[in-house]
Amino acid sequence: MKMRKIMAVFWIVAALMIGFAGGIYLATSQGNVQVAPGDSNGKYTSKQEIAQSDDKMQKINQAYKLIKKHFVEKVDDKQLIEGAIHGMLSSLDDPYSSYMDIEAMEQFNEQIESSFEGIGAEVSLVNGKITIVAPIKNSPAEKAGLRPNDQVLSVNGESLEGYDLTEAVSKIRGKKGSEVVLEIIRPGVKDILEVKMTRDTIPIETVYADMKKVDGKSTGIIEITTFSERTANEFYEQLTSLEDKGMEGLIIDVRGNPGGLLESVGDILAFFVPEDIPYVQIESRDGNRDPYFTDLTEKKPYPIQVLIDEGSASASEILAVALKEIGYDVVGTNSFGKGTVQQAVPLGDGSTVKLTFFKWLSPKGNWIHEKGVKPTIEVKQPDYYFTHPVQIEKALSFNDTGENIKNIQQMLTGLGYQLERIDGYFDKTTEKAVKSFQKDQNIKQTGKVDQDTAGLIETALIEKIRSGEDDRQMEKALQTLYK
Amino acid sequence: MKMRKIMAVFWIVAALMIGFAGGIYLATSQGNVQVAPGDSNGKYTSKQEIAQSDDKMQKINQAYKLIKKHFVEKVDDKQLIEGAIHGMLSSLDDPYSSYMDIEAMEQFNEQIESSFEGIGAEVSLVNGKITIVAPIKNSPAEKAGLRPNDQVLSVNGESLEGYDLTEAVSKIRGKKGSEVVLEIIRPGVKDILEVKMTRDTIPIETVYADMKKVDGKSTGIIEITTFSERTANEFYEQLTSLEDKGMEGLIIDVRGNPGGLLESVGDILAFFVPEDIPYVQIESRDGNRDPYFTDLTEKKPYPIQVLIDEGSASASEILAVALKEIGYDVVGTNSFGKGTVQQAVPLGDGSTVKLTFFKWLSPKGNWIHEKGVKPTIEVKQPDYYFTHPVQIEKALSFNDTGENIKNIQQMLTGLGYQLERIDGYFDKTTEKAVKSFQKDQNIKQTGKVDQDTAGLIETALIEKIRSGEDDRQMEKALQTLYK
Repeated sequence: MKMRKIMAVFWIVAALMIGFAGGIYLATSQGNVQVAPGDSNGKYTSKQEIAQSDDKMQKINQAYKLIKKHFVEKVDDKQLIEGAIHGMLSSLDDPYSSYMDIEAMEQFNEQIESSFEGIGAEVSLVNGKITIVAPIKNSPAEKAGLRPNDQVLSVNGESLEGYDLTEAVSKIRGKKGSEVVLEIIRPGVKDILEVKMTRDTIPIETVYADMKKVDGKSTGIIEITTFSERTANEFYEQLTSLEDKGMEGLIIDVRGNPGGLLESVGDILAFFVPEDIPYVQIESRDGNRDPYFTDLTEKKPYPIQVLIDEGSASASEILAVALKEIGYDVVGTNSFGKGTVQQAVPLGDGSTVKLTFFKWLSPKGNWIHEKGVKPTIEVKQPDYYFTHPVQIEKALSFNDTGENIKNIQQMLTGLGYQLERIDGYFDKTTEKAVKSFQKDQNIKQTGKVDQDTAGLIETALIEKIRSGEDDRQMEKALQTLYK
Repeated sequence: MKMRKIMAVFWIVAALMIGFAGGIYLATSQGNVQVAPGDSNGKYTSKQEIAQSDDKMQKINQAYKLIKKHFVEKVDDKQLIEGAIHGMLSSLDDPYSSYMDIEAMEQFNEQIESSFEGIGAEVSLVNGKITIVAPIKNSPAEKAGLRPNDQVLSVNGESLEGYDLTEAVSKIRGKKGSEVVLEIIRPGVKDILEVKMTRDTIPIETVYADMKKVDGKSTGIIEITTFSERTANEFYEQLTSLEDKGMEGLIIDVRGNPGGLLESVGDILAFFVPEDIPYVQIESRDGNRDPYFTDLTEKKPYPIQVLIDEGSASASEILAVALKEIGYDVVGTNSFGKGTVQQAVPLGDGSTVKLTFFKWLSPKGNWIHEKGVKPTIEVKQPDYYFTHPVQIEKALSFNDTGENIKNIQQMLTGLGYQLERIDGYFDKTTEKAVKSFQKDQNIKQTGKVDQDTAGLIETALIEKIRSGEDDRQMEKALQTLYK
């Protein structure tokens, strides 16, 4: 099983998969659009209605005309109108209500689709550089040997300098069958590498399954990375396959899962929550609650646990709190805390307002908004999971101090090197650890941390985290599942 | 002469004088409203005009109605309308164009007025505490012995905990003749102090003058802290008085002066810029330039210099660049760089849109926007001028590291104590310096920096900066004025 979500914790900067745009990782901070049942007509444009609100619109109109006529630069109509809508939505003080223009909607739609065409690599902006976070399994990027922490300098000869993530992604992406050449800087490699790939269709999988023997028992692990259109189907296939293989216990892993469609998590809960308790309750502005039920007659015959962390939000929390309230253990750290449901309402010109329509409550009526789901078994990951890439201008060495050094010390500790201090003071034991690391990497043992050494430390750490060998939350879940 | 503006550099958090609200110090980042001549009717509300822009308003109206009808919480009309106006202005990407609601306009008007009623103290929010920056000369606050760094706990028995600066100021302020009791925590004093004052009228002076003997010559120094309605008159009075006393050279100090009214700086430049060159040029959207001239037949017979720093903005830069371009020296550091003129246009209901109407250019047609005025003689203040108050949870001691320690080290160096390191590592020389400081302050020589010791260090440093004894920019100006 790929531990993609752990990366999202490691790379604090917003990561987005090529072709699988923005929304996913942004969702933890901005939320996902969830189309709630029962209310979807979003047109409010009759002439009569406009007339009725003329007096309210008048002040807006007045400001609009003033700006158009007098601002020191010429102003575009569209810019002002979108500004006004952004402004109204901002005034709600709700980070999940937002305006999406035509471009943002196209990106969002891609995210809901189940595949895209490109090279298949998750990228991120790290210290201003377009950086490979991870190639997707069996993708052109993986076959061509792209590695985590590779920095992309140019695409087909065009420099990416100054580009933001979305712009860079749109350059790298392209039609199946087309060729793309990336210039790459790799930590520890002096020369600039040229990597040529043929773009292909990349399936977006949102469910990963695995079976492990634990105390002699066949234990299924299903990771859900997001709740998109096909997720419930994928989940059903994987669950059935594990059950057919004689699974005796199940761990559902929604760590780092920012949420997604309400219907998707509902379809998954239908396998687990019995019919006598709602799996979720939707509350509208007037306080009315609409409970949602499954038609499941009895619970699964095997033990189940849910893994959550601070990156589990929205639909992930619907899943975790429902299973918690019907008696299953939830392992990990307190979840994100998003208890609202958004609906995307098209404005008719391709743009859309994503608006918070409802609150969702747990089966027992608890609202976890801004509180999160508290695990029944609390386990934190090691500190080095939360380190971040550093930008080093002048090589760090003995007797220096600073936040960068603290971060490097945590990384080295995570990699198993012995240090006496991890408080940001570069002591002799830090120097010794750096030399050991440099020896292990076959580079010059300077005992100093320049950008190259720092990059290699980061890459080694990313690989260690991805290997899952030190995943304390998973270990705890496996230890306690049958207790 | 009071060096009030230096405080604004020291206290990076936004400072505002009681009664002399927000705008002044915010102005460096947000700009001041300048009423430009020639265009001032700001009403755009005829029914016909509204009808014409119906189609543009339609999309805004659509979003408005959607939010009103469906957002998960009830929404106020006013909130949405102001949000829309804020949003349109934000879309301009111009930090100087903004919406001021009725409350903000009242504050702004107070700022233009020439006096207020209160206790006469400049306060600031430091680490969440309402803190005295400076009492104004001859004010009730000064007479009652309020001191820089005093923390105000309560006003007439009402705790200020959780209040923001504006709320706290409105509690402290009040009618002339009324009594107010503040509870005060003073660094180095164990007990809470009760300070009783009778509020009074506090004149807002914006011009401070002084005469110094330099190389035997009578040298006038005029500091302008802001360009408000009465500033040009005050300036004229002080200038005339200095000239009557036989002034042989003049230094005009606009450091930390965030700007103000265009007319005000124009009236001041009328004493210095001869009639054959414009003192400023106003450029409108269509590129037309409107040059402004004085009727001065000849330049002053004595040498003049202008002192500027990174806090000198807007009208201060009009003054500095005009005098620079007619041949006077400008001393200090590169100024802020605001080259636009705003106009306040009332919307008829007490609220106002402050909009950038024009660019202003220097006499020779240079636009200093986002570049600032470059001094002809560049001089920086010592590093400790740029330190900031620290919040200490656990006392800092030998072998600790961190940004707080670096800051404390810079402050101690500024106070004249000898340290070998000022890089954030708490070495033995830092410990020794702390002990010396504690000895000088008659407190226990622990060699550790707790909140109390840190507070005393800050207070000592503020007093040193205020004394002006180490003002390198002023020293340089005085040295070079007659060269």
